[in-house]
Amino acid sequence: MTKNSTPWVQTVILEAPSLKNNMADTERLLRALNHQLNTDAIHIDLDLVRRLPELLRQYQYRVRCVLWKDHHQWQLLEVSAADDTHMAAGLAIDLGTTRVVLRLVDLASGCPLAELAFDNPQETIGPDILSRIHFAEKEDGLGQLNDLIISGLNSAIGQLCDSRQLTPGHIYALTVAGNTTMTHLFMGLNPRWIIREPYIPVTNNPGVIRAAALGLRVNHRARVLIFPNIGSYFGGDLIAGALFSGIYQNSNTCILVDVGTNAEVLLGNENWLIACAGAAGPALEGGVTRMGMTAGPGVIDQISVDPDTLAFHIHTIDDLPPIGICGSGVIDLAAQLFLSGMIDARGKLLPTVCGPKIKPIDGLAHLVVVPAEESGTGSDLTISQADLDSLMRSKAAMYTILETITESVGITPFELTSFYVAGTFGSFINPESAISIGMLPDLPRDRYKSLGNSSLGGATLALESDTYHDKINQIRERITYLELNVNQDFMNRFSAAKFLPHTNPSLFPSVKTVQKIGI
Amino acid sequence: MTKNSTPWVQTVILEAPSLKNNMADTERLLRALNHQLNTDAIHIDLDLVRRLPELLRQYQYRVRCVLWKDHHQWQLLEVSAADDTHMAAGLAIDLGTTRVVLRLVDLASGCPLAELAFDNPQETIGPDILSRIHFAEKEDGLGQLNDLIISGLNSAIGQLCDSRQLTPGHIYALTVAGNTTMTHLFMGLNPRWIIREPYIPVTNNPGVIRAAALGLRVNHRARVLIFPNIGSYFGGDLIAGALFSGIYQNSNTCILVDVGTNAEVLLGNENWLIACAGAAGPALEGGVTRMGMTAGPGVIDQISVDPDTLAFHIHTIDDLPPIGICGSGVIDLAAQLFLSGMIDARGKLLPTVCGPKIKPIDGLAHLVVVPAEESGTGSDLTISQADLDSLMRSKAAMYTILETITESVGITPFELTSFYVAGTFGSFINPESAISIGMLPDLPRDRYKSLGNSSLGGATLALESDTYHDKINQIRERITYLELNVNQDFMNRFSAAKFLPHTNPSLFPSVKTVQKIGI
Repeated sequence: MTKNSTPWVQTVILEAPSLKNNMADTERLLRALNHQLNTDAIHIDLDLVRRLPELLRQYQYRVRCVLWKDHHQWQLLEVSAADDTHMAAGLAIDLGTTRVVLRLVDLASGCPLAELAFDNPQETIGPDILSRIHFAEKEDGLGQLNDLIISGLNSAIGQLCDSRQLTPGHIYALTVAGNTTMTHLFMGLNPRWIIREPYIPVTNNPGVIRAAALGLRVNHRARVLIFPNIGSYFGGDLIAGALFSGIYQNSNTCILVDVGTNAEVLLGNENWLIACAGAAGPALEGGVTRMGMTAGPGVIDQISVDPDTLAFHIHTIDDLPPIGICGSGVIDLAAQLFLSGMIDARGKLLPTVCGPKIKPIDGLAHLVVVPAEESGTGSDLTISQADLDSLMRSKAAMYTILETITESVGITPFELTSFYVAGTFGSFINPESAISIGMLPDLPRDRYKSLGNSSLGGATLALESDTYHDKINQIRERITYLELNVNQDFMNRFSAAKFLPHTNPSLFPSVKTVQKIGI
Repeated sequence: MTKNSTPWVQTVILEAPSLKNNMADTERLLRALNHQLNTDAIHIDLDLVRRLPELLRQYQYRVRCVLWKDHHQWQLLEVSAADDTHMAAGLAIDLGTTRVVLRLVDLASGCPLAELAFDNPQETIGPDILSRIHFAEKEDGLGQLNDLIISGLNSAIGQLCDSRQLTPGHIYALTVAGNTTMTHLFMGLNPRWIIREPYIPVTNNPGVIRAAALGLRVNHRARVLIFPNIGSYFGGDLIAGALFSGIYQNSNTCILVDVGTNAEVLLGNENWLIACAGAAGPALEGGVTRMGMTAGPGVIDQISVDPDTLAFHIHTIDDLPPIGICGSGVIDLAAQLFLSGMIDARGKLLPTVCGPKIKPIDGLAHLVVVPAEESGTGSDLTISQADLDSLMRSKAAMYTILETITESVGITPFELTSFYVAGTFGSFINPESAISIGMLPDLPRDRYKSLGNSSLGGATLALESDTYHDKINQIRERITYLELNVNQDFMNRFSAAKFLPHTNPSLFPSVKTVQKIGI
């Protein structure tokens, strides 16, 4: 047996057939592989069985095998010469609603080779899940949505392979993590019932599917592992994040939060996992203001306010003239406005403090963050009182969800030893700012851990070892889903959280101090 | 749970989705099926998953499911209304070198619906396995042979379905039993190495394959269970025969013999099974004489000789004027010639007894069995001394093989409590005649049991229950294959068996008596 970093590429040296060992070609190879992989269930497609006699004799019974695993069964996908130097590649896909990220991996070592991201082409049909689900109900709407994502992926796969002098035929194994609706649209499943009471997905556990059946142009024997969902509102991207965070094997209770329009939360440790999801509103993703947009060149991602002059110091992605603000920038802005006293504890702009920075537009008070002459658009970049109100609701919802889920297991947020912030957007949030506005609990800052693209991270892990496949199922089976009932108790908590940082300032001791210094 | 004769068709009544039970459609159905089938592994093709939400709602969560099993995994193949009255059909196929037999079965009850047989269209290329294997080595030879059998099957399937007002789309499960070479040609596997030392099949355990991948025009989700082989010379038809005979679960030691050009033998009981195969020569299948042919209208299948007048009393299939003689007829003839004293213990024609019945043709002595004026061909039907010599070698080989395999486990043929004669040809052999010439051991006649088409019988059983699937694998795994070494010991036995009935007449006590009466 040869040593590999992953189990997917095996070198097999077979005894040549003789009268004393006249086992059939297929069983000869499978027996050796069974032994190396410690299994008794390996499947081979008929077209490969047909070629096996020729391949084994051509390579003198010394072969390299490429494998993948489907639940309990291994799949033998390729047989070539033992000294074959052609790459066998894997592809991890983070199937985001807005952005799709692909990571090409050497299947033998698990090492990343290249990455590529592209905007989800379904955005031409609708920016959000809801609009796409409605479109999917039209005549051939689902087909169009499915075509868009599959074509987009095929095109990206081609580019990604080109960049490493590979062809799509070198890709044998794929892992896909997306939210429940994106997973449906990717598989061509009708998402209609996801948004209608009682919120029923077509499947929560797609398992392993042939890439060809999905329309993906990779190796014709390639298989795709699709991350399972817990339900309509807790998708495979979160399961991938849970896998990537390691929360499921931590002896201390940790939390994993994906901050967005929909806040998804996973709480637990090696013994139990509890999940919930709730609407936080679009404010946290920067999707509320005229100037709000997703992160990109020229977008404000950090902001600070000089406590003395109240001048804005902004940072934009790629240091370009500012054209808008992303979610993390909005959180920074709100925190700075609060700490500098430009908004009060209810989130209201204080004209006496803001002075000429406030401009009425269409009869509504707006705060000019970047004046026209400094902006990359030629217009003022502003945030309105309505935008701030929306942000207050979103941050309050986020905090209420965290309070509710921790209380459901009898702990407080302060007992969390690690607070993982997941998702591409999450990784940009400054915990300091999020705590200042009372969106995240006032924990020691080193307990906050940004996971970056944890969905892609989890998808990549699944390309490294079959033990992760088992863990995915363990995570899925172990999670208890907590339905967030918007009852009086929830509404009371929510109302209490709609202050900066909170009606009960003792929950945010560190913010108090900063605020005092700030004013 | 509804009661079915087979597990393949299940009626499932599901709880409708609600906020309290918001399981995904697929898992809702699978959970119920898992429960009914006591499994945790059911696979559904993506195209069926795609249709599931619509089907479940259309049928108000009361559905009929058609399933099949692939090793440890169940396959869900169809979902329709619980009260669907359309037939779900199975098809058992005996894939003979000469003749192919299909049996259509109601998959819900296991009851046979119709049968159809056709000559293997590969006969246009070569009558026997060897000529076909050589043809398969030519450019596209394998493709042609594969096309012939698949087209032949598709055409027969069409006819068979028509006869029962079904369409091929109603067929969801198929079972195929054939010898190792036929199984290869059916699957499009190159049989080249089967006939070359060290005799290596491409696979001995094809398992379950999609009908579509094999080119079979049945339901597009249908699966085909292909019976496994033990090796080059012991095929799936024999495993099917073993299943059908029940030898593998008998507490007494029994034997199963497929008499033909190649004699295949399985000996054993519920604890052990031992198999061997050896060349018996074509004489036993009637393939030696000018008048030899396979069974069909006008072919002599029974013959007796009046001990006083030495007149032949012949019986032909369909009572037509005789045109030839089949294997069972040849065995009858040889027995009668011996018992009436027309041939001696060495199998030599005795001119003094036969008188004018002997005619020289091309300088070789021939016995006229049917004179030209009585035959259906207008010519004499004769058997030559060379034909009889060939039969002597074949029957001696058969007996020697039986002696060798029983001795290998320390018993004699007389200890066998049941002697199963398998195969279509075998079912026509008169044990009395076979014993008279010393081809089969002198057992009480009621121990001989003709199984008819045991290959088709076994294939049909596998359509009745998944427990038979497990038994097929148990049989295959339990069989020890005995290589027949043609050593001095074997040759000594063979020489001793080249007498009528045997050099040692004490082995055939009942024949002695009959012979005395006969002379």
